[in-house]
Amino acid sequence: MSEYAAPVREMMFVMRELAGLDEISRLPGCEDATADTVEAILDEAARFAGEVLSPLNKSGDKEGVCWHDSNVTMPAGFAEAYRQFAANGWNGIGCDTDYGGQGMPKLLVAAVQEMWKASNMAFSLCPLLTTGAIEALTLCGSDALKATFLPRMVSGEWTGTMNLTEPQAGTDLASVRTRAEPQADGSYRVFGQKIFITYGEHDMAGNIVHLVLARTPNAPEGVKGLSLFIVPKFLVNADGSLGARNDARCVSVEHKLGIHASPTCVMAYGDAGGAVGYLCGQENLGLSYMFIMMNAARYAVGLEGVAISERAYQQALAYAKERIQGPETGSRSGDKVAIIRHPDVRRMLMVMKSQTEAMRAVAYVTAAANDAAHRHPGEATRKRNQAFVELMIPIVKGWSTETAQEVTYLGVQIHGGMGYIEETGAAQYLRDARITTIYEGTTGIQGNDLIGRKIARDGGATIKAVIGLMQQAERQLGEQKGADFAAIRSSLAGGIQALSQAVDAVVANFAQDIKAASVAAVPMLKLFGTVAGGWQLARAALAAQRHLDAGDGDARFLAAKIGTARFYADHVLAQAGGLAHTVCHGAPGAMALDEQQF
Amino acid sequence: MSEYAAPVREMMFVMRELAGLDEISRLPGCEDATADTVEAILDEAARFAGEVLSPLNKSGDKEGVCWHDSNVTMPAGFAEAYRQFAANGWNGIGCDTDYGGQGMPKLLVAAVQEMWKASNMAFSLCPLLTTGAIEALTLCGSDALKATFLPRMVSGEWTGTMNLTEPQAGTDLASVRTRAEPQADGSYRVFGQKIFITYGEHDMAGNIVHLVLARTPNAPEGVKGLSLFIVPKFLVNADGSLGARNDARCVSVEHKLGIHASPTCVMAYGDAGGAVGYLCGQENLGLSYMFIMMNAARYAVGLEGVAISERAYQQALAYAKERIQGPETGSRSGDKVAIIRHPDVRRMLMVMKSQTEAMRAVAYVTAAANDAAHRHPGEATRKRNQAFVELMIPIVKGWSTETAQEVTYLGVQIHGGMGYIEETGAAQYLRDARITTIYEGTTGIQGNDLIGRKIARDGGATIKAVIGLMQQAERQLGEQKGADFAAIRSSLAGGIQALSQAVDAVVANFAQDIKAASVAAVPMLKLFGTVAGGWQLARAALAAQRHLDAGDGDARFLAAKIGTARFYADHVLAQAGGLAHTVCHGAPGAMALDEQQF
Repeated sequence: MSEYAAPVREMMFVMRELAGLDEISRLPGCEDATADTVEAILDEAARFAGEVLSPLNKSGDKEGVCWHDSNVTMPAGFAEAYRQFAANGWNGIGCDTDYGGQGMPKLLVAAVQEMWKASNMAFSLCPLLTTGAIEALTLCGSDALKATFLPRMVSGEWTGTMNLTEPQAGTDLASVRTRAEPQADGSYRVFGQKIFITYGEHDMAGNIVHLVLARTPNAPEGVKGLSLFIVPKFLVNADGSLGARNDARCVSVEHKLGIHASPTCVMAYGDAGGAVGYLCGQENLGLSYMFIMMNAARYAVGLEGVAISERAYQQALAYAKERIQGPETGSRSGDKVAIIRHPDVRRMLMVMKSQTEAMRAVAYVTAAANDAAHRHPGEATRKRNQAFVELMIPIVKGWSTETAQEVTYLGVQIHGGMGYIEETGAAQYLRDARITTIYEGTTGIQGNDLIGRKIARDGGATIKAVIGLMQQAERQLGEQKGADFAAIRSSLAGGIQALSQAVDAVVANFAQDIKAASVAAVPMLKLFGTVAGGWQLARAALAAQRHLDAGDGDARFLAAKIGTARFYADHVLAQAGGLAHTVCHGAPGAMALDEQQF
Repeated sequence: MSEYAAPVREMMFVMRELAGLDEISRLPGCEDATADTVEAILDEAARFAGEVLSPLNKSGDKEGVCWHDSNVTMPAGFAEAYRQFAANGWNGIGCDTDYGGQGMPKLLVAAVQEMWKASNMAFSLCPLLTTGAIEALTLCGSDALKATFLPRMVSGEWTGTMNLTEPQAGTDLASVRTRAEPQADGSYRVFGQKIFITYGEHDMAGNIVHLVLARTPNAPEGVKGLSLFIVPKFLVNADGSLGARNDARCVSVEHKLGIHASPTCVMAYGDAGGAVGYLCGQENLGLSYMFIMMNAARYAVGLEGVAISERAYQQALAYAKERIQGPETGSRSGDKVAIIRHPDVRRMLMVMKSQTEAMRAVAYVTAAANDAAHRHPGEATRKRNQAFVELMIPIVKGWSTETAQEVTYLGVQIHGGMGYIEETGAAQYLRDARITTIYEGTTGIQGNDLIGRKIARDGGATIKAVIGLMQQAERQLGEQKGADFAAIRSSLAGGIQALSQAVDAVVANFAQDIKAASVAAVPMLKLFGTVAGGWQLARAALAAQRHLDAGDGDARFLAAKIGTARFYADHVLAQAGGLAHTVCHGAPGAMALDEQQF
């Protein structure tokens, strides 16, 4: 197994050439995020990821977490790594400076988070959930709650969780039954069971701040009767010191396919009289707060797709360069060669590499738009960027995580029989990646979000504006010479045409037959992701050619950008036509059978 | 977790309507395999699979095998299940009647084996390997060796293994180093280490007959210096009783991603003076014997893809019918429904169902051709069928196992968060399936076999003949009325056109640039499999319509055949054009980067 080496050069290329880092650093509050500073921070993060987190990835998977009597012991080394992580200030890098964060732009935060996820996905879920809880508190907590909890969550001294799911309420949060009873002192007593609670219990931090969706008495049925509560593991005294143990306990942990070092907890609230909770924001608006945070959480899971793909690629590449097997194809010499020389292995590596780069580019461009949406002085620019971000979130989440399945699959495949042996490590990435298309909304949920709220609701206006940008890039490709650019242009043009047809079909179908439209949800998501990835790789090739023409930069790195874009065009983007066919014509077959005919 | 219920009706439909069971039962030696008898045998096998093997699948996965001091203890229940399996005569169902087998046609044997693989893939590998060893012995063993070993291997009293791989010799068997030294008595002493030996050691049978590839002194280098040896765990005395323990020991077992109940052994031969071995066939022809058997082994692994897909589908279907979550799409009622009513879940189930049926049809049609290739009185018919079988083996192996990855992936996805919990059982199918694209030749090996030996070598003649059969089916679709048949025809016509283009490109490229051709190997395999599956489902739809027109059969089952073919046409077969693009144009991008640019 190889340790993770963060691809800092690649990240900087994407940030500068595709995501507009220079423009981001001109936004109010982002003045510190110059290219030099960003690169220095990435180098520092890369060191931490490679030297501290990566070496714990496999041992954490093997050892797993240990539950005993409502406590959870983390694998060896995790608590100390977390202590260093917090001490180095990584936890608050993207958080509000008012509470001790560094307020760095999302673009930089995305790259740094990619490193945590790639080096040790199970570890990274702890700060991820804390960040989510921080955002919820920042969004809707009272000043008193913020003052009590935020500084120590931003510093990483305390961690956070999100408690939504119950056995009968997974995707369907309307079915949540956990209840909260108001007390005379303004607090609540919370009763209920929550499942799939990531880092619901662990031994890495002094306190755990649970954010819990629950119903107050007489709340409306369904999602409009859900409120958000803060339920700390230890109550906090007025002076900020830790008080009594709250009635919130981890009653078991799940035995999962992957992310073994991340405790997935069943949480029992109120088994001994009621867990003390504090209402966060207004009653009955809990789900709307969750939805605002959900974009960030979904984005973060999408980044997991990018990150675990990068990790799988790095390991497969190292093996392909080192494993000697068989003679070169077509050679008369019987000399054995490294398997990277075999065309099919090279094809698999290129599928991994090109899709990983495409996903990263789409994710970082979305992060930059998020910065502009929040910080740009012009309202029209903010709105346009916000619309783009909302359109892209289901793509970053759904498409990147689905693609990560193929990439981690190929990572095993390149190892041959060794890939199936757990000791090798390649299978862990496949197992870890498998959760990403499920949590924070399955791919089906992302697809329906895409076709409904993000495409049909505005009649396709936002996505058509994006298609317009794609067409600009396609025209620029036409100004370049050579077979590579001609091939990239041809595939991108085909992809754009397929996407346009599919958008028209979705907009038309959604009003007429929502079930038929919903059949197309995931194919549409894959189509849009595939074309968006091709668009970004085409932009990368154009940027590379600009630098080659100017004679600056590493010519081999830049040439690889063009070759990678071409590979993607002919091996991945080529699938756009088939996906558009499915979007436009796939409903009758999908709805033909009644339930008894299955 | 649901127990496996073999799809006997579906199997009978494929056998009768697509694979020509009635014609097979007219072949010499197949007279007993009438439809009634075949169905009775399938019912009996279904009972054994559902009642004996299926209940051990999950417990076997959880318990795994236990190695201690060169012995392997199987999970609870396996030894008794194997005893029953052998006692019921299942082991020899396809074996030569001369040695106690039942000599049943491959077509029936395929369906029966599908049941073992679906109900308990880890268990099924033991008889699979025994069958391989029986075939090797039958092919090249001396009469004395056959008399000593075959009857007890056919009965299942003894099991068999295949020992090819060594640490430095995986795909590249030319690197095998195990050596065999001739002795004065005509036997050999074998020395070397073999890895990845399935059921190399276990406690289910009285003896284990290892077939081992090794080099004799002064043998030529490379694959032309490999000979095949029989190395029994216990030597056999002249009277047939077991003699001394041979110097062949299991020194460890692998910790694998899946098939935990199948011991994957590291075998040490000759650590204590030399393992007694017997040359099987002629010296230096070992690999050619292996190649003859390889078709059967690869076919069997392809069936694993079909089987595990069926199992994953059954469990996902049961869950989708029982899990209540969310209201119906587009309904104003807030009533919760089973998730099978959600369009995206239905889409996923149809992807699973249609591809599983397509894979089964392709596999059974190939099995029937194998029967005709061996038993038909007409030489031309035998030859034509043999060419078809050889063409289809890489498809059955490579395409079915690759498709099984998607199907088992979706099986987890339909379960949502529960799918990620090992207790649910869905993840086991994904883990078990993952080996199938690796062992008995990776998908890359299958793809290169397809484009080289099976397509380019005869200038595309065999595959073009198959395309001619596809075109016949397409014309028959044109004679049918209605939107379903029009859609199926349109997609099949597109698929045939894409396949034809790709075949021409492969034939042309193979002579000119073998590396470029090799980039196209796996895309070509996927393209051919996808179109072949569509062809068989189209034939199924035509057969169903014939029965509907005649007013016989179960109208709902038959209508589902047409709906399933339509789904496949618009969701799966629609990908053919993109794959053909990659076959025809994918080489430059794949070979653009040098090794240092990765």
